[in-house]
Amino acid sequence: MAERSGSGRPVGSPVLRREDDRLLDGRGAFLADRAHGALHVVFVRSEVAHGDVLTVETEAAQRVPGVVAVLTASDLALAAGHIAPLHSPDPVFSAATAFTMADQFLDVMARERVHYVGQIVAAIVAVDRYVGEDAAELVEVGYERRPAVVEPEAALAPGAAVLHPHLDGNEAASIEFSFGEPEKLRAGAAVTVTDTYRIGRHGAVPLECRGVLARVDALGGSLDVWTSTQIPHMVRRGICEATGWPAGDVRVHVPDVGGGFGTKANVYPEEILIPAMAKLLGRDLVWIEDRQEHLTAAAQGRDQVHRCSLSVDAEGRILALEDDFLVNTGAGSLWVAGIVANTAIHLLGPYRLPAAHIHGRAVFTNKSTVAQYRGAGRPEASFVLERSLDAAARELGFTPVEIRRRNLLTAEDMPYGRPIPYRDGVPIRYDGGDYRRCLDEAVDMLPESAVDEVRREHPELLIGHGVGCYIEATGRGPYEAARLEVAQDGRIEVMTGAASAGQGHETAFAQVAADRLDIEMDAVSVLRTDTATLPHGVGSFASRSAVLAGNAIVTVADELVEAGRRRFADAYGCDAAGIFYCAGVFTAPDGRTATWADLAKLTAPGQPLEGSPALQAAGTYRCETVTWTMGVHAVIVGVHPGSGVVRVLRYAVAHEGGVEINPLIVDGQVLGGVAQGIGGALYEEFCYSDEGEPTSTTFAAYGLPGTCEVPEVRVRHLGVATANPLGVRGAGESGTIAAGPAIAAAVDDAVGTRIVATPIAPRVVRAAVAGEEGAA
Amino acid sequence: MAERSGSGRPVGSPVLRREDDRLLDGRGAFLADRAHGALHVVFVRSEVAHGDVLTVETEAAQRVPGVVAVLTASDLALAAGHIAPLHSPDPVFSAATAFTMADQFLDVMARERVHYVGQIVAAIVAVDRYVGEDAAELVEVGYERRPAVVEPEAALAPGAAVLHPHLDGNEAASIEFSFGEPEKLRAGAAVTVTDTYRIGRHGAVPLECRGVLARVDALGGSLDVWTSTQIPHMVRRGICEATGWPAGDVRVHVPDVGGGFGTKANVYPEEILIPAMAKLLGRDLVWIEDRQEHLTAAAQGRDQVHRCSLSVDAEGRILALEDDFLVNTGAGSLWVAGIVANTAIHLLGPYRLPAAHIHGRAVFTNKSTVAQYRGAGRPEASFVLERSLDAAARELGFTPVEIRRRNLLTAEDMPYGRPIPYRDGVPIRYDGGDYRRCLDEAVDMLPESAVDEVRREHPELLIGHGVGCYIEATGRGPYEAARLEVAQDGRIEVMTGAASAGQGHETAFAQVAADRLDIEMDAVSVLRTDTATLPHGVGSFASRSAVLAGNAIVTVADELVEAGRRRFADAYGCDAAGIFYCAGVFTAPDGRTATWADLAKLTAPGQPLEGSPALQAAGTYRCETVTWTMGVHAVIVGVHPGSGVVRVLRYAVAHEGGVEINPLIVDGQVLGGVAQGIGGALYEEFCYSDEGEPTSTTFAAYGLPGTCEVPEVRVRHLGVATANPLGVRGAGESGTIAAGPAIAAAVDDAVGTRIVATPIAPRVVRAAVAGEEGAA
Repeated sequence: MAERSGSGRPVGSPVLRREDDRLLDGRGAFLADRAHGALHVVFVRSEVAHGDVLTVETEAAQRVPGVVAVLTASDLALAAGHIAPLHSPDPVFSAATAFTMADQFLDVMARERVHYVGQIVAAIVAVDRYVGEDAAELVEVGYERRPAVVEPEAALAPGAAVLHPHLDGNEAASIEFSFGEPEKLRAGAAVTVTDTYRIGRHGAVPLECRGVLARVDALGGSLDVWTSTQIPHMVRRGICEATGWPAGDVRVHVPDVGGGFGTKANVYPEEILIPAMAKLLGRDLVWIEDRQEHLTAAAQGRDQVHRCSLSVDAEGRILALEDDFLVNTGAGSLWVAGIVANTAIHLLGPYRLPAAHIHGRAVFTNKSTVAQYRGAGRPEASFVLERSLDAAARELGFTPVEIRRRNLLTAEDMPYGRPIPYRDGVPIRYDGGDYRRCLDEAVDMLPESAVDEVRREHPELLIGHGVGCYIEATGRGPYEAARLEVAQDGRIEVMTGAASAGQGHETAFAQVAADRLDIEMDAVSVLRTDTATLPHGVGSFASRSAVLAGNAIVTVADELVEAGRRRFADAYGCDAAGIFYCAGVFTAPDGRTATWADLAKLTAPGQPLEGSPALQAAGTYRCETVTWTMGVHAVIVGVHPGSGVVRVLRYAVAHEGGVEINPLIVDGQVLGGVAQGIGGALYEEFCYSDEGEPTSTTFAAYGLPGTCEVPEVRVRHLGVATANPLGVRGAGESGTIAAGPAIAAAVDDAVGTRIVATPIAPRVVRAAVAGEEGAA
Repeated sequence: MAERSGSGRPVGSPVLRREDDRLLDGRGAFLADRAHGALHVVFVRSEVAHGDVLTVETEAAQRVPGVVAVLTASDLALAAGHIAPLHSPDPVFSAATAFTMADQFLDVMARERVHYVGQIVAAIVAVDRYVGEDAAELVEVGYERRPAVVEPEAALAPGAAVLHPHLDGNEAASIEFSFGEPEKLRAGAAVTVTDTYRIGRHGAVPLECRGVLARVDALGGSLDVWTSTQIPHMVRRGICEATGWPAGDVRVHVPDVGGGFGTKANVYPEEILIPAMAKLLGRDLVWIEDRQEHLTAAAQGRDQVHRCSLSVDAEGRILALEDDFLVNTGAGSLWVAGIVANTAIHLLGPYRLPAAHIHGRAVFTNKSTVAQYRGAGRPEASFVLERSLDAAARELGFTPVEIRRRNLLTAEDMPYGRPIPYRDGVPIRYDGGDYRRCLDEAVDMLPESAVDEVRREHPELLIGHGVGCYIEATGRGPYEAARLEVAQDGRIEVMTGAASAGQGHETAFAQVAADRLDIEMDAVSVLRTDTATLPHGVGSFASRSAVLAGNAIVTVADELVEAGRRRFADAYGCDAAGIFYCAGVFTAPDGRTATWADLAKLTAPGQPLEGSPALQAAGTYRCETVTWTMGVHAVIVGVHPGSGVVRVLRYAVAHEGGVEINPLIVDGQVLGGVAQGIGGALYEEFCYSDEGEPTSTTFAAYGLPGTCEVPEVRVRHLGVATANPLGVRGAGESGTIAAGPAIAAAVDDAVGTRIVATPIAPRVVRAAVAGEEGAA
């Protein structure tokens, strides 16, 4: 699928994912596979979007045979009843962007008020799920309903009901910055295009829903918790903050995880309640989210509205961008700072941009909570900027490709700074790549002229071509931890804080360790993350695993070699400095050699270092700031004029992702990202009634693309190394970010619409084809 | 209870056991407490002592609702169908003692032949124990019965059926050695007393029966196994040898264990079957031994018959000991070498002994298997030697105390060698103490004259006084492992290979670590042993934990301080050699200080050693040979002339156990040992019918002493330090070894019998009181 040549070393090799045999054979160890014998928890969830909880009648449920307990918030003596945000912005960034953030109020279990349908009000503990579900229906919750606030404009309107009583309004966060006199430049512009853009609420919807298992087997009152998460250390922190337990009393393990995409990079009420209830009852408990719960209560993404003006000169060169946007965070988001700031920063795009004025606000409503979902604010920014560029091109008579060629940064521009800091407080500095060449490569793979061939293939469809560019800050810090240990048989065991959610860490991290240690990949095992073996860590999100965890493995591998030298020297009485290491073999000046297995054996009974700790090294890789990935999507769609159904027929991604650890995995990331991008562009939407009732709680109502909706995706990697030891940039979100604007542009090209909102539903397209006003 | 003065430091302090609050409050984490949700295994056990298995009909059992599987040996693809001995004697020792040992044949699950009632023939896996028990009754096993061989003399008789087809006889092991011309000395002796002594079969019968739990939660096919064992590393080896799994694929954990006493220092078929079946079925499995199973199928102890001649001169000085003994090992013993050799060596006693000829054989019969039980061959040796001395004293007209005073070694004799090696191949060398003073101290606490006072208290009883001496090789090597780690909060976590079975390791090991690290005991946690955290270890048995694991903690604590110095130096950029450590505080030459908690914090995010491995040290203590404990029991009994019931009324133990880590725990060990010694002397016996059917399978049939049967025990510790760093000797078996001969002597004194066998049942005493011939 991708075009490249291999290097012969582990890093860069397109080896097959070693976890796939296990996962595809049904031998995966997902959470539900590991829950044998635990009591099942069923949550009673709010059926109203906004209201006061007056009564919770549990007696009937408690009488159901097989019900062990029915618990409400008052039964749980939690130190803190709510979950704290997972990220606060850097003070330098906050000062530069006037960033403010309201105190969040994400209940672990509702006490007095509910803020969204699906919020947890009570929990049934039962011998099995069937009994638990039956009992849950017998819990009677008495509500005093309050009017639901669903749209952010309404939530901010004067006189709007304040949803969270401890706040004086519904604003969750605010950001505002400007540079380069945008108003003045707008005044002198050849063209200013202004429009309102809406990016619908959709989300990750992973193959595996969420789930939490707590086992009280451990001694001394401590708990083992398994959760289908991307961020075990943050979950541990959330549990400890809510319960008051010391960090050493809870060990969070990550089993096989069937997809995360950001919705599992959240700390959920269920992740706190299951351990807290297990401890209270002294019983192993499991909760396995069903699909309806997932579509109702798991954190969702996107849901933004932008009012944007783009000013360009007569040559199509960008002069100024002015954008005012709202993020509908629903009942709240632990990542509100990240999402709002991501959108604001990524609105600046991969282009020369002299001036900008960005103002964004996150708003509380009575929808479900929001987490970072693949792209996390960037797809929205890309949609707004790219659609604006297309509009300007149309006004000026340029092709979409041409207007981009005139604005994209090139290798000569690098490094390219922006006069504002990134979220970590470090001035933005695009760190290499040739963005215009990315466009050229994408159009080379899928030129505008290809529509002719596609038209011949699909005479029944209206065919259009579109492109979309994106920029992405990847490899967010501050650090990631890695630990390498030499097992008794000499294999190297690797663990990092970047818990795998199915991205192929078992393979890619083995490649990194094998490469750095100069050994065979088979000699490396990648262990799943747990917070006892690795006491600190950050997690897998924000396209950070390869950059942070990958480089942490490199750093720690070097330390492991040093530790090996010292061990060799200790055992054989020679000088560590004189020991040469190559290809898994330590050689002393006198010619004596030892492999890793030989060193491991030194600690066995009767050996020179009998009983010594296993040879290990641990440490972190810390980066000052992010590294920037860029790419261009080119797409050809066919629109069925009668139904308005859009089919994606050709897709190409040219991508500057730095060094690839495993090109097959990067391909997979891009392909999967495109699939989710197509879903968001055309099919997926979490809809709510005016009363805040979710109406997309089944797969009949929430559309997902299948294999038939996703074409072959051609991928071309440019591979300009960046400055970290591996030279890698993040690639996990690349496939998703520009899919929306590229597909919208292609639809416009096919049927002459002007798409300003996603998803691009058939009714919208149908109306446009029929020439209806205001349809799109 | 004991008489001593404290030192003020942790080692030597009579602090209360820190585990007792948990254990006495019902908060212990025993195996059965941790088994929630696992499927239950019920074993189908042989009902015949000897026979060929023709058919195993499982269909009816498989049809029982709730039965998940019924497995027989052919369903389990085990690499090895049997369990290998846990100990082979040293070659130097074998050569010096003509030691030979037959290949053992302890089936994991019976295939073709059964050798004892209780042997496992099939296993039911069911949703609960009730269903499993019902189903087990439906399994029809067809046997071709063979004649049972129950007594060792019969098993060795010419023409006896050979029980194990791969052998050419029923001899399991043989030992023979002599020194100093015993026949010549016998010929010149004033008195030679010759008799046959029988020590009945009894055993540990701990408060908690056995149990095994295997969880398949771990990824990559590995298993977590919890077992109520004293020897987790040997259990892991047994599992791996039988299954062929690498050691890294199984992690053996030790939960709270409610007593072991040697019967849990065995590798049992159940410990292999539960993990093997869990892996096969992919389900968590638990087996919890019920009391009837324990009394039938758990390994038992003792069961020896000796023909002994003791020759003394006219002054009562020992000239020669000649003994020919048989150990009835039943279907086999993984410790056959240890038990046979222990008996042979300890027959030499704490006395000057110019000449001896010892010949011992272990014999296979159709009784249950045998493990080392508290004393492990030594109580039998003590019984034979002490009873012979009493007989010689009677012949010569000496008191029992006087004949011992004339033969016991004194401080001037030390070190005292024997012209044969110990089991580890090192020449026997009693390493200090004043054995005659021990006798004096015991008699000082409980003089012969005390019978007068006791007679006045109990005019209805016949009163007698007895003494018994013992010698004990303790602290058997070759090594033990310890690991100390500084937890995130600065506490020191200690783990050793000497898994606690309730002996107070949590307290005593914390004392040792706190003492050596010069910190408060509260700053030390002792973790339960698991084979992943501590990859090598030996176990808790043979009065070795304090000696081996205690000294390993000392060694590793010193290494931890060195590691702390290096860490301090790394973090603060100074020279490790210049850092002073005292009372938990490291001080640099410039006055900067750091506690253990400060050093732990250095690895947290943002700190100087961010992500570094937790500060730890691990290593072993290895000893060349054993250290010798000695003691004297003095007892006064009252015999009820009508019923023949013996009551133990006064008890005193003077004991040379070296330095005491915790005098309260040593007292507890001695007291508990005396209780078990009283049980073996008076009440406990595993009886078998002539067909090999066990007839002591309930507590109605197998008598145990309760608190009413055990008097206050006065203990006096002499405390001559030995050469290891802590100066400790083993004390775990001291209370048991000489109880039998002391009580037998007191009964003789009371009623004029000559007791030559245990248990001293009321019918035996009654017959003696009635003057019946051959009664005792």
